[in-house]
Amino acid sequence: MKKCAVLMGSDSDWPVVKKCVEVLRSLEVPVEAHVYSAHRTPDQVAGFASSARENGFGVIVAAAGKAAHLAGAVAAQTTLPVIGLPVPASQLDGLDALLSTVQMPPGMPVATVAIGGAENAGLLAAQILAVGDPVLADRLDAHRMGIREAAARKDELFQATLADMAEPAGR
Amino acid sequence: MKKCAVLMGSDSDWPVVKKCVEVLRSLEVPVEAHVYSAHRTPDQVAGFASSARENGFGVIVAAAGKAAHLAGAVAAQTTLPVIGLPVPASQLDGLDALLSTVQMPPGMPVATVAIGGAENAGLLAAQILAVGDPVLADRLDAHRMGIREAAARKDELFQATLADMAEPAGR
Amino acid sequence: MKKCAVLMGSDSDWPVVKKCVEVLRSLEVPVEAHVYSAHRTPDQVAGFASSARENGFGVIVAAAGKAAHLAGAVAAQTTLPVIGLPVPASQLDGLDALLSTVQMPPGMPVATVAIGGAENAGLLAAQILAVGDPVLADRLDAHRMGIREAAARKDELFQATLADMAEPAGR
Amino acid sequence: MKKCAVLMGSDSDWPVVKKCVEVLRSLEVPVEAHVYSAHRTPDQVAGFASSARENGFGVIVAAAGKAAHLAGAVAAQTTLPVIGLPVPASQLDGLDALLSTVQMPPGMPVATVAIGGAENAGLLAAQILAVGDPVLADRLDAHRMGIREAAARKDELFQATLADMAEPAGR
Amino acid sequence: MKKCAVLMGSDSDWPVVKKCVEVLRSLEVPVEAHVYSAHRTPDQVAGFASSARENGFGVIVAAAGKAAHLAGAVAAQTTLPVIGLPVPASQLDGLDALLSTVQMPPGMPVATVAIGGAENAGLLAAQILAVGDPVLADRLDAHRMGIREAAARKDELFQATLADMAEPAGR
Amino acid sequence: MKKCAVLMGSDSDWPVVKKCVEVLRSLEVPVEAHVYSAHRTPDQVAGFASSARENGFGVIVAAAGKAAHLAGAVAAQTTLPVIGLPVPASQLDGLDALLSTVQMPPGMPVATVAIGGAENAGLLAAQILAVGDPVLADRLDAHRMGIREAAARKDELFQATLADMAEPAGR
Amino acid sequence: MKKCAVLMGSDSDWPVVKKCVEVLRSLEVPVEAHVYSAHRTPDQVAGFASSARENGFGVIVAAAGKAAHLAGAVAAQTTLPVIGLPVPASQLDGLDALLSTVQMPPGMPVATVAIGGAENAGLLAAQILAVGDPVLADRLDAHRMGIREAAARKDELFQATLADMAEPAGR
Amino acid sequence: MKKCAVLMGSDSDWPVVKKCVEVLRSLEVPVEAHVYSAHRTPDQVAGFASSARENGFGVIVAAAGKAAHLAGAVAAQTTLPVIGLPVPASQLDGLDALLSTVQMPPGMPVATVAIGGAENAGLLAAQILAVGDPVLADRLDAHRMGIREAAARKDELFQATLADMAEPAGR
Repeated sequence: MKKCAVLMGSDSDWPVVKKCVEVLRSLEVPVEAHVYSAHRTPDQVAGFASSARENGFGVIVAAAGKAAHLAGAVAAQTTLPVIGLPVPASQLDGLDALLSTVQMPPGMPVATVAIGGAENAGLLAAQILAVGDPVLADRLDAHRMGIREAAARKDELFQATLADMAEPAGR
Repeated sequence: MKKCAVLMGSDSDWPVVKKCVEVLRSLEVPVEAHVYSAHRTPDQVAGFASSARENGFGVIVAAAGKAAHLAGAVAAQTTLPVIGLPVPASQLDGLDALLSTVQMPPGMPVATVAIGGAENAGLLAAQILAVGDPVLADRLDAHRMGIREAAARKDELFQATLADMAEPAGR
Repeated sequence: MKKCAVLMGSDSDWPVVKKCVEVLRSLEVPVEAHVYSAHRTPDQVAGFASSARENGFGVIVAAAGKAAHLAGAVAAQTTLPVIGLPVPASQLDGLDALLSTVQMPPGMPVATVAIGGAENAGLLAAQILAVGDPVLADRLDAHRMGIREAAARKDELFQATLADMAEPAGR
Repeated sequence: MKKCAVLMGSDSDWPVVKKCVEVLRSLEVPVEAHVYSAHRTPDQVAGFASSARENGFGVIVAAAGKAAHLAGAVAAQTTLPVIGLPVPASQLDGLDALLSTVQMPPGMPVATVAIGGAENAGLLAAQILAVGDPVLADRLDAHRMGIREAAARKDELFQATLADMAEPAGR
Repeated sequence: MKKCAVLMGSDSDWPVVKKCVEVLRSLEVPVEAHVYSAHRTPDQVAGFASSARENGFGVIVAAAGKAAHLAGAVAAQTTLPVIGLPVPASQLDGLDALLSTVQMPPGMPVATVAIGGAENAGLLAAQILAVGDPVLADRLDAHRMGIREAAARKDELFQATLADMAEPAGR
Repeated sequence: MKKCAVLMGSDSDWPVVKKCVEVLRSLEVPVEAHVYSAHRTPDQVAGFASSARENGFGVIVAAAGKAAHLAGAVAAQTTLPVIGLPVPASQLDGLDALLSTVQMPPGMPVATVAIGGAENAGLLAAQILAVGDPVLADRLDAHRMGIREAAARKDELFQATLADMAEPAGR
Repeated sequence: MKKCAVLMGSDSDWPVVKKCVEVLRSLEVPVEAHVYSAHRTPDQVAGFASSARENGFGVIVAAAGKAAHLAGAVAAQTTLPVIGLPVPASQLDGLDALLSTVQMPPGMPVATVAIGGAENAGLLAAQILAVGDPVLADRLDAHRMGIREAAARKDELFQATLADMAEPAGR
Repeated sequence: MKKCAVLMGSDSDWPVVKKCVEVLRSLEVPVEAHVYSAHRTPDQVAGFASSARENGFGVIVAAAGKAAHLAGAVAAQTTLPVIGLPVPASQLDGLDALLSTVQMPPGMPVATVAIGGAENAGLLAAQILAVGDPVLADRLDAHRMGIREAAARKDELFQATLADMAEPAGR
């Protein structure tokens, strides 16, 4: 299977990004992760991105906050799909990171997920790899089924909460 | 090759979405496009999305404006990668469509591109299909090379503009 | 009396949504509540909404956060009045949920209340049911009268606070 | 049938509000409309709203721009459902009107529709009156069916557009 | 001297509004304060505002949060200067209250101060009353002089802080 | 009567500011107007503001766009009431000017009106001067009465528009 | 004298950026300008920036729109001062470009000017070069003096406008 | 070497601004710092700024929150480069300070850094002074090298974190 790279601009992004790696591992997607910064280590970013396809990667997740250029810097050096994960790291609660990540110019797409949406960044990476991998696609379907069943169970549990709450109110 | 579906919420989105279909065709990606609305024809959306993988699609682009639910409605019914294209269709210039598209809850990713970023939606779809398709990957690399060369030429042309402008100022 | 349905996208919305159910019960409006998600359990949402009128519901409250599609998904499947309650569940403090809920396209209205405005969602539901129900209308008028009297008493109590505060300042 | 009142803060709002009256009339809902302003004619607003229920109204639409207080001023004087229609009348494109209309305090709901969403304001008013009026509910269902069929036809027409466009590209 | 009225929409606004009353009292401006709500007690607001000039008031401060209509409701009933104080009482941190207060339509001005700017609301009220009251104007000048002197002293104190900090860094 | 000063940061603000001077003149308030800039002619601003009270001014209107510092620069040099008029002069449609004008620090109030709200800036200035001037207060009351009557007439005229429109729809 | 480089992400930015080059030339600052893109020609950007100091540049202006990474990409490769000029090139009117340019992480400053503020970008570049160049500093002082005198003349001219306007109003 | 001045509008800004002074001192740039306010001590600001060049300053950092006029007030009085540091001091999290600082009119540039970006304000000041000072330029290059090396080490350390995390997940 092709690998997924997970890059983050700063090790302080790790508490957010962790879920991305976790979900990828739970889906048995091979992951390589790095703390690479578009501003502090630009040459490493360019080098990694431009050789990513030949090094066996199929997709790259890039997480960054504030003026979040990491995903764009990666996208500029590869035609692999690049997923941008805006990290809420400033007073503006990630709105700056969202706009810096998503508003890319024509020719250089970045597949942007929600502010802090690390789990979805990982799932999206797996979905992309699964396009040509029926086994992974089945794992994603099973994962989705799990989400649906958990949601259904939550409604059942909630009915009990609701009934309990009604008691005192009904006296 | 797997096909790309391009869905748009309204036929009034077509002037924006057209570039997405054009770029996909120029890359020889098979495209099917529909005017399907999360609100006006929800059952069609659900039906299309839930059977998309078995019908030979590898990726789905969903374009919508205002409270742009289309991409999310598609993502809820498939584990194929779904690309969300926010269309600037309201007084809020597409900020509403961007947030409605990108801020998806955990478990249901939407790969969001820029407001009005139809060309990038198409390119991203091709990049996703190219993960398992070296021929398409080569086409994308050639396309990228074309962008770079055009940009380089623009700088050369610009030097002439700059020189012309200098003349009167330098007298 | 027709029933009010209260749907929420996630059980984590319950601390916000609870007040909606409480105010409906205090007004003796029959309530049915569910954890149904536009993304995790879309078929349940569609099924519930499309049969809501025939199942005796007169109004539906739909509460969700982030890319809040629940109210819109319900509105797409019924012509009952649908009340959208944006839940502040993201880094953007509910602005995403507000825009995702209120900016609906022509033909599919959602009656949106304030971010986190659960009590008002319940009151609005009761007001809608009261259009054809004079007894409930009287209860709403009594409830309103109670609000006015409480507000008037607050001004009286405040005069005492003000007088106390004046003492030290007046020495 | 109970009547719907449509109030607007200024006659300059009429080009936006017109669609609200049109949709109500097309659904055969009796409408009374007025140019009443929360700031220029506050007593008229208060008088109209406080006697609206006894005067045979079942729902009130209030449209205003900028610091849009009209819907709130009406809601303060009646327990009828009040629909707020934010009009884009300032440099801020209606964001001010949206927040002024929707962010109501507990106890005083305003059912807010999209910025400039006049058609939806009318439909929502009809939906509310239809809760106790099966004939109007049927009309709304027919109207909805019309929307769905029109949307389906648009997809068919679009396939022709798409085929035409493909020709030159396919050479 | 003419009196200043300080109205607030809710007693929960008092912790913010308190500074307004304090600064007015420190300037010996007679103050009357009330918890009056544009939505919960609209008739009281209208009654108070429309008779304020004849009751000896020269200026009115109106503080409210969320869809902050209080200042506008007061301004609609009097030609006295009305000062609007937006209270940060919602998830939107007072941006809703600011826009609801400041974006008044032509003919009905509200003199708006900063979000949470209670002290400035009081000072502005005193400045307005001082236009025709040289004694109060002198008090305001003395107050301003105090601010300037305190600021100058702060710079002196800061030089010590700076010198201390330099020590360890200079080793 | 005390005079009103109207300052604007640039002569390009005049088309917006003009209405302010017109309304003041229509109310027979003596006006002096200047193009003074907080950035281009800061010393003129400081000189004018610091001597404004002794030169017979009772209130100062300051209009500016973008990083609108003019009102604040004036407020720093006088304890006269200063009215800030944010001019929509940038890509941000005056939101920058609004925040730069209204968010003043404690001790230095600026009475801010709506973005582009020149007429209200003039009315507010007159209201402030009228606190100690019953004749001007009467003029303001007459002006207000005129607004109310015009609004009432507009509703009458609108009834005719409405009736005309009904004809074709009623066939 | 050290040279100033002016980089822009796209030749479509030139109508905005032109004023920057013009003001630099009018101040006799040697300018070199290029169309270099952080995304389309990242290696050119990195190469230019990393050798800029040794090639005789003293300051670099970088202009870009949307997810404006150019200034940050330059700043990552040099310790020369980098001026960021946000270009209003998207539906968001340059707010995306502003945040993408200014919200840089610690260690990599970008000196950001206003959205579309090309003239100021050029002046700032000249101010920076003038720190060690008294002749250029004198030119800047003369330029500033010119601005002040022009502003003063505008007030004089405006007095005539004002007087003319008064005539008809005074009849 | 020319000196750097660091001005802040309030001593409450010091916890933010401190890092600016620290980084300047670590680079051996002579610093003078003051608590000077555009509103509370405008004459001190004007006096300091207008004589700054002749007093040996090469660059001025101005930090302020809310309606942050300090940098603009300094820029109006000098042609030295002025760095604006927006301080997050209000309910709007510094967005007001950012816009008040960066959106300067033509002719008066302010080199704005990120909200709360004190370290970058200091680095930018040093970069500006280093244009004519090769020793300081070398220090900045060394500082940059340190940042790059630290970032590279962080990636190495992170690989250990990643490996540890993998263990339990891999069981």
